[in-house]
Amino acid sequence: MSDVAAAKPAKVVVSAADLRALVAGIFTARGTAVTGAAAVADALVWANLRGVDSHGVSRVPRYLELFDKGESVAGAVPTVERPRAAIAVVDAHAAPGPVAMNRAADEAVACARECGIGWASVRGTVHTGAIGYYASRIADAGLAAVGVVAGVPNMAYAGAKGAAVATSPLAVAVPAGKHELVLLDMATAVMALGRIAQLKAAGQELPPGVALDADGAPTTDPALAKVPVPVGGAKGAGMSLVFEMLASGLAANPIVPAYHAGTKEGRRHRQNGFLLAIDIAAFLPLDEFTATIDDTVDAIKSLPPAAGTSEILVPGERGRRAAAERSAAGIPLGPKVWRELAEIAASLGVLVPAPLGG
Amino acid sequence: MSDVAAAKPAKVVVSAADLRALVAGIFTARGTAVTGAAAVADALVWANLRGVDSHGVSRVPRYLELFDKGESVAGAVPTVERPRAAIAVVDAHAAPGPVAMNRAADEAVACARECGIGWASVRGTVHTGAIGYYASRIADAGLAAVGVVAGVPNMAYAGAKGAAVATSPLAVAVPAGKHELVLLDMATAVMALGRIAQLKAAGQELPPGVALDADGAPTTDPALAKVPVPVGGAKGAGMSLVFEMLASGLAANPIVPAYHAGTKEGRRHRQNGFLLAIDIAAFLPLDEFTATIDDTVDAIKSLPPAAGTSEILVPGERGRRAAAERSAAGIPLGPKVWRELAEIAASLGVLVPAPLGG
Repeated sequence: MSDVAAAKPAKVVVSAADLRALVAGIFTARGTAVTGAAAVADALVWANLRGVDSHGVSRVPRYLELFDKGESVAGAVPTVERPRAAIAVVDAHAAPGPVAMNRAADEAVACARECGIGWASVRGTVHTGAIGYYASRIADAGLAAVGVVAGVPNMAYAGAKGAAVATSPLAVAVPAGKHELVLLDMATAVMALGRIAQLKAAGQELPPGVALDADGAPTTDPALAKVPVPVGGAKGAGMSLVFEMLASGLAANPIVPAYHAGTKEGRRHRQNGFLLAIDIAAFLPLDEFTATIDDTVDAIKSLPPAAGTSEILVPGERGRRAAAERSAAGIPLGPKVWRELAEIAASLGVLVPAPLGG
Repeated sequence: MSDVAAAKPAKVVVSAADLRALVAGIFTARGTAVTGAAAVADALVWANLRGVDSHGVSRVPRYLELFDKGESVAGAVPTVERPRAAIAVVDAHAAPGPVAMNRAADEAVACARECGIGWASVRGTVHTGAIGYYASRIADAGLAAVGVVAGVPNMAYAGAKGAAVATSPLAVAVPAGKHELVLLDMATAVMALGRIAQLKAAGQELPPGVALDADGAPTTDPALAKVPVPVGGAKGAGMSLVFEMLASGLAANPIVPAYHAGTKEGRRHRQNGFLLAIDIAAFLPLDEFTATIDDTVDAIKSLPPAAGTSEILVPGERGRRAAAERSAAGIPLGPKVWRELAEIAASLGVLVPAPLGG
């Protein structure tokens, strides 16, 4: 708690349960069904709990703006086709991301239980939040999961000027036994857009290799930085491009070519995605698999550390620790984020919980 | 051809067909069935054609060494289980990689034709070569493909000293219409091991950010470089780790924990992998999908180039151009590689083709 108190500007600390209730109340008031509103609230608060505040409740005003513009539909109910036994296509009908992605996770798991693996494509949703959330939900059910989301271009592509492809994230979740699940949840950019925006807002110099200027040249000047750089140059750019092809192509809702056609419709915010669920128990006994994952985690964590490293972490470990801390102590929110949420809630007649501190 | 003639040391130029016949002859003579030997030859020569010589015929002596040590079995016939409709597990029984991986590609496609998607795990093969080859074969059949291979640790992991995880590659292949298929084929290391070895052999300074020394500190000194650095630091290391968990865990043949246990058996060369095939036509008409991929490729190639870039490439394009050139002009091989192949062939009574030039 002392970190929180020392932070500037002063944070408002809210319990996860209160924050979920607040966000769910806002979405319900705007017309999202109770289960859908709970899904949005849980996905956003999950990100805050894990310290990924850029994907958390600070996004609520943006969803409401999309509702107001008609680019997202608060009460939309996704529809599902299952053209073959192991695949589903979820049409989000512009529902908020967590509503569509949770439905896709359920479909992927159902397909996998039947066929060994299951794939659910999601067509035309908005802001899915942290893709790791959906992969984790699948892994919590004892399956392994892979998830990808594709969106509107906001990242560089090797050799091009300006925004070319999206920072499309990849998540892989693998259940363990005595250890917590392993969760890789990574953008295809070197540095998250939210972090670059923070440094820009503070006028701080960017580290080298994270952003390009308007001419496509590397820059560390926050005033000149226009687009984030893909991880590994052509590798991250290539990953983002093939993710778009699989996520948007299979959902029959291409984003990249429409965006570069330059029409207003082509530049509208929207996302597609897919989730792959793997029913581990169809391959080998689940406890044998999870014991292997435990052994693998132990082997990595027991490696000799390089100078300056006190502990070797596996993917997802840092976020899980943050979640344990924030579950106990509450979630620190920037005062602006809290003020916006409280104002929105008040305007909709939703009860604003008392912060734990701030 | 003038490049080839100008290269030092002088290269020996061999046609792709002759090289395939030579390699197939060597494997047949060592006991691999005719179709299997052809599979190995085609996979290795494919890599040479595309300019990825580190994954090409230079590896032949290594396979034979593995046969001699009993770590690979030239005549092994993979067996297949299909525990559920969409998944197959191919036990390679230590067959050479292309024999096992081609079988897995066929199984993944069969599963996908039935269920929409298909997954084939491969247990216990050796040196699979360029994973992009198998993904391409699936895409040539009109399906999209994802492939991963996991092997013995040879790459750094964020915060650890020494070899921790493998440079496990990821391949994604997507069929297009008027364009050639899009093929991402990337190691999880910043720079390929083969390239680092070349620079080390030449005593040339390494670029920054590609290798660590024995203490886990960054180095550009070829004499001190011990392990390659993962792409994007924790991102590439995390990708490699979860690839091991999925490839080796689902195949019930864990490599990373066995390696770090330090036993001789644990350090033995072996690989596991998986291939995912996606039957695009189960989602939407194939020509509608491939038109979208064409549009996406056109959009990327039409982006305004950054300074110093004359053409923007999509994944796989560079390799395809090399293949067109080398198909016509022949494949340039280092004199040592050629001499080794010719000696092996002669010792086995296999006809050595006449080079085109050198």
